[in-house]
Amino acid sequence: MTERNTKRSERQRGPAAKPTIADVAALAGVSVSAVSKVVNGRSGISAPTRQRVLEAAGKLRWSPSVTAVALRGARTRAIGMVAGRSSDLLATDPHFSVLISGIERELAPADYGLLLHIVGEEPGAEERAYRRLAEERRVDGVILTESRIGDPRFELLRQLRLPAVLVGVPWQADPVVSVQAGGQEAGVRAAVRHLVELGHRAIAYVSGPEDRVHTVFRRRVFEATLAELGLRPGRLVSSDFSAQGAVAATEELLAAPAEQRPTAVLFANDTMAVAAMNAARRLGVEVPRDLSVIGYDDLPLGEWVHPRLTTIGQDLFRVGQAAAAEMFRLLDPERAVTEPPSLRPPELVVRESTGPASRP
Amino acid sequence: MTERNTKRSERQRGPAAKPTIADVAALAGVSVSAVSKVVNGRSGISAPTRQRVLEAAGKLRWSPSVTAVALRGARTRAIGMVAGRSSDLLATDPHFSVLISGIERELAPADYGLLLHIVGEEPGAEERAYRRLAEERRVDGVILTESRIGDPRFELLRQLRLPAVLVGVPWQADPVVSVQAGGQEAGVRAAVRHLVELGHRAIAYVSGPEDRVHTVFRRRVFEATLAELGLRPGRLVSSDFSAQGAVAATEELLAAPAEQRPTAVLFANDTMAVAAMNAARRLGVEVPRDLSVIGYDDLPLGEWVHPRLTTIGQDLFRVGQAAAAEMFRLLDPERAVTEPPSLRPPELVVRESTGPASRP
Repeated sequence: MTERNTKRSERQRGPAAKPTIADVAALAGVSVSAVSKVVNGRSGISAPTRQRVLEAAGKLRWSPSVTAVALRGARTRAIGMVAGRSSDLLATDPHFSVLISGIERELAPADYGLLLHIVGEEPGAEERAYRRLAEERRVDGVILTESRIGDPRFELLRQLRLPAVLVGVPWQADPVVSVQAGGQEAGVRAAVRHLVELGHRAIAYVSGPEDRVHTVFRRRVFEATLAELGLRPGRLVSSDFSAQGAVAATEELLAAPAEQRPTAVLFANDTMAVAAMNAARRLGVEVPRDLSVIGYDDLPLGEWVHPRLTTIGQDLFRVGQAAAAEMFRLLDPERAVTEPPSLRPPELVVRESTGPASRP
Repeated sequence: MTERNTKRSERQRGPAAKPTIADVAALAGVSVSAVSKVVNGRSGISAPTRQRVLEAAGKLRWSPSVTAVALRGARTRAIGMVAGRSSDLLATDPHFSVLISGIERELAPADYGLLLHIVGEEPGAEERAYRRLAEERRVDGVILTESRIGDPRFELLRQLRLPAVLVGVPWQADPVVSVQAGGQEAGVRAAVRHLVELGHRAIAYVSGPEDRVHTVFRRRVFEATLAELGLRPGRLVSSDFSAQGAVAATEELLAAPAEQRPTAVLFANDTMAVAAMNAARRLGVEVPRDLSVIGYDDLPLGEWVHPRLTTIGQDLFRVGQAAAAEMFRLLDPERAVTEPPSLRPPELVVRESTGPASRP
């Protein structure tokens, strides 16, 4: 089932159940106009009050009406995406490309285009890009990815009154419209169980950048699953989604004396997992004979390497489609659209890169 | 040296040498107004005359002034790219992503965005997309890739008066502004010579889609280089840039009796080469011990596979930068821009996937 923080799922329960701005105000213990100021990014509200209002909106799954926005001026027929160059591994990690392809698949029949801004890493570059998109009315809305801890984008976009859809789970209970399959923990859980069933007891996890919401989330699932199975904690390595990062992590993990090395490693994405398999081979460590490896993303690449990569699939293409569909709903609440594809929880895709543990 | 079909290189030779519309008319044996009609896509000119005018413009490297276009209305601050889904391997071949990254690197400091339209495969889809971009004034210009034989886009864009820059060499002597390093044959030549020096005499070439200009070009270079070296022609297989296509081609090549198999294969891109190396390994054929493999594109992936991929590098990132820089010159002929990066001819990048021939 898709978890969506929008009014649409509330509509399905009948109008009596639909939360209103008054409900949010009541829950937060403030006036309706205070709620309005908060969600429109206006000043005059204290930080604690703002936080209370946002939490109440998140709990009730209430988002401000975008009717005013939707009717404001002519449509640009473009949806924007802003990515920082450091986080955008467009040139080196197909993850983002697959997502974009899914988004475009929904945009194209509606004659919408995707306006991509890849910005530098200097402070404020992303904020400036969003401000320009809004002030110059160059897009009807923006799609966000890679939710970060303390993500400043949602508040900024509310201030700019730019419709936004997030791919992923927002930091804290922010009422930004977000798209993600339910049961996000299912993939990592299944991966750990699969390895344990193969006899692995020394399992390492190589994560993505520390400021991402899903990095923290998945690592906790990894640790919790091992604990549930009564096993000792696994080795945790922090990395950055890149092939270079994976090679460094692999060399570090395999530098330990044989009896302290992991017999299996989960990587936070396929790009790292593929680089790691090859780095291991270069060190004389064969996959899966000496080391089992699991990736994440189910990129097409995983089918073409040898051994074929066991991974966790999250159907990025359909996630992209769902994000675009949700954006169209935001812009046209009365729009008669076909139901966007439902999103299944991440699932383990067993291929050839895992095998029995080489030692107990 | 960069070959660019623009007036800028002519400016370098001094104003006396700059071709004008009158020169084109004289060379084609028509009036200036006839030339104007042709390049603005107006009717009333016979097909043979149109062809003569375009050839004359191409020979003289003359392009119509875009000043009128550049001053027309407010800037959109967006450059468009339209790609058909069949040719857009965005989700599966990083080639396009690397190119886009280079384009964005030039666009971002100028606060320009890239408007991407990925369209379906139904006839006319690409044309409709270009028409919308022009009629709705959503972009200042478009960047084209994958020049095809009989490419209809250049004429269309002239009719739409939409500034265009092509990455690659246009079909025939079309005066569209194009960006490509000189010496395009250098990469394939070096690759063939490298293999011959390693003792290979049975070399196959797996090409991209048949309708692409560079497919025909590179295959001819392959055949010509073998002929120059007094060797028998190599086996030619036509493919489609995809991993699946490469697997099929590899299985076909290796299905022959041992003495008729190639000992080396050049692939038209890295995605195919990587898939092929793994397909070969699955068939018990080791690279480079039993089979040498060379790719094309020098994608980051080539560094992370094992063995690391020998390939032909064409610095796609800088090609993207150069295309964007050329677009800015088109839009602002008086613009003081830093010289875009010069583009070196494609060059062989020797890594680990080639070795001595397994048999003479």
